[in-house]
Formats: sequence, structure tokens, C-alpha cells
Amino acid sequence: MLVLVDQDGVLADFDRGFNLAWQERFPHRAVLDLALRKNFYLHDDYPAGYRAEIRDIQASAGFILNLPPIPGALAALKALLDAGHDVRICTAPLSRFTNCVGEKFQWVVDHLGPAWVDRIVLTKDKTLVRGDVLIDDKPAVTGALDPLWEHLVFEAPYNVAATSRRINWSNWRQVLQQVELDRAGRLGADR
Amino acid sequence: MLVLVDQDGVLADFDRGFNLAWQERFPHRAVLDLALRKNFYLHDDYPAGYRAEIRDIQASAGFILNLPPIPGALAALKALLDAGHDVRICTAPLSRFTNCVGEKFQWVVDHLGPAWVDRIVLTKDKTLVRGDVLIDDKPAVTGALDPLWEHLVFEAPYNVAATSRRINWSNWRQVLQQVELDRAGRLGADR
Repeated sequence: MLVLVDQDGVLADFDRGFNLAWQERFPHRAVLDLALRKNFYLHDDYPAGYRAEIRDIQASAGFILNLPPIPGALAALKALLDAGHDVRICTAPLSRFTNCVGEKFQWVVDHLGPAWVDRIVLTKDKTLVRGDVLIDDKPAVTGALDPLWEHLVFEAPYNVAATSRRINWSNWRQVLQQVELDRAGRLGADR
Repeated sequence: MLVLVDQDGVLADFDRGFNLAWQERFPHRAVLDLALRKNFYLHDDYPAGYRAEIRDIQASAGFILNLPPIPGALAALKALLDAGHDVRICTAPLSRFTNCVGEKFQWVVDHLGPAWVDRIVLTKDKTLVRGDVLIDDKPAVTGALDPLWEHLVFEAPYNVAATSRRINWSNWRQVLQQVELDRAGRLGADR
């Protein structure tokens, strides 16, 4: 199977990285309890007056590069590959791309190794990319085309209302099982 | 139609940009006559002893950013959009990606405008990307999958032997005609 995996929020812990950077820059301000996140975009969960500062942090040099990995994600990615699947990292750049795009690539080198760079597909519109499944924390992934992949929603506090099947890396076998289930479902539908 | 367009060698004049940088860095060395290019990779047309220096130039800060546009390409791209096609820039990063990826994005902002950033698909493997045609100067574009697009080879001295249909921007109507011809061919094949 061709498995597309999102980067921010699925492999790289964008929220935790943000909280660390926020606390470092503004040590006397309150920090958001990540379990209370409600909106996909982090700045929508902070008071509106902080929006510019939040985006400045996210666009700053080193922010993307220093995101900690989601626990279990890197091992699960390699397990998917070992299980014979073709795995690609399918990620959208931030609007303020200057530091982001190069650092996304370097993050993959640092955490998965240089061979994984060739597995990156960087695109704002993921419906353009072929795949059997897309593992993504965004509640609804839309674009110009009807997607060929099935969306498996990677669990996060801000996507509990998503109607698609939800998975997490806490037991990577769950991911493999869901991927296999999806294949079985497709094969069934083809008949 | 969904038209994928390569960046280096199709929109951005990689060869001419390289020759300018080479002459600037080594003013007393001979410079390659671009009309005599035979291999897709420029370093294969220079003596083998220059390979490291050539790749250093290509990986250097500002190299990708300062590539001159291919004459007619930017207007043709906008004409394709105006004609109702969905146009995407489908480009592979250099192996030494650190400067390359961010500068490819900035090049698109500088020459096509910020709205075009959302049209970039950055991937080593273009067979993963959906499209009706791919306009690319590489003689053979291969990857993990059988491509969904038809490859239109963008003319260059190093791809004269390519068997696919060849086009150039010198008359952008030729591009539109080829794209339309391709659609007609596909519709015919579907019947």
C-alpha cells in the first residue's frame, strides 16, 4: 500500500514544540493546556491579541527544526516500511515558508535519516497526491480534487469530532491494522 | 486539465544561471557552450574533475533564487491558467536541499507572485502526483508508480533523443495546443 503520512502533528509535535518556544520567549505568560485544544490552528485557541506573536514564533528560524518527535511515530513509520508498504511524508508548508521548508527537510534527515528525504512530498494541496491512505491530524483534508486516499485521522484533542476513523501511534500495531483494514475494505468494495 | 510544470529547465533557466555563476567564480576558465549540452545533469557535460565545484555552486546560497526565467515561460503559465487549466509547479529538490527548497519557493513568489506558492508540489518522485500532462525537460521521468500524466518533453539540447512529444515556450500557443491535443487523445482513448 501507498501510505501518506503528514508531518506536523503526526510525526513532529508542533503543539508541544510551540509551548516550549512560547514559554522560553514569554516566561511570565500563561501557557495553553494542550489537552484543551479545540481548533486545528493553535493561534485560534489563544486570545486573538496573541496571533501575530504566535505566528512569528512558528515562522522563526529553528522552530520547525527543533520540534520533538511524536512518541512512537518514527518507529511506526519504519515498521510500516518494513511491513512492505510504500511510505511517504506528505506535508504542507506554513504560509511563511522561508525557514519552514528547509527545516522540514532537515528534520526528516535528523530523525529518520537522509534516505527519507526522497520520501517527502511538500504540497499545500494533498488531494493532488496519490495514495491508499493519508494519516493526518487535520479534521478535514480538502483540495482541488476528490482524494484517491482514505483519510485516517491522527488523534488530537482538536479533532475529536472528526467523522473519519481515528488512530494514534501509542500502539503502532493499531496503525498497521487500520492500514490493512482499509486495504481489505477497498478490496471488498472493488468486488 | 491538470497541468504539471517542472521548475528547473522549464520555468527557471538552470543552465544559463549556472554559466553566469561559473564565470563569476572562475573568470579565467572555459565555459560550456549550452547548445552542446548532451546529458541531463550539467556536471556530466563538464570534465569530471569539476564535479565537486559544480555541485558546490548549485548548492550555494542565492543560486536557485537568482536563476533567470526561461523566456516566455511565465506568461505561458499564466495563459494556461487563464485558459481554464489547473496549473501546478511540480519540482524535485536538489540532493543538497538546504538553500534549494526555500529558494525555489521564493523564486516562485518573485516571478509569479505569492498566490503561486500554493501551486508548488515539491517531490523527488513525480509519479506520485496526479495530472493530465507533465511538462518537464528530463528525458525520462520515472518513479515508484506508473504515471497518470502524459509527459511532454520541454525542449533542450540534452533531450533531443527523447521519444515523447517535445514542446517549447517560444510560441506558448504551441503549449496550449499540445495540452489540448493530449486531452483530445485521452478522450479518444476513453471511448
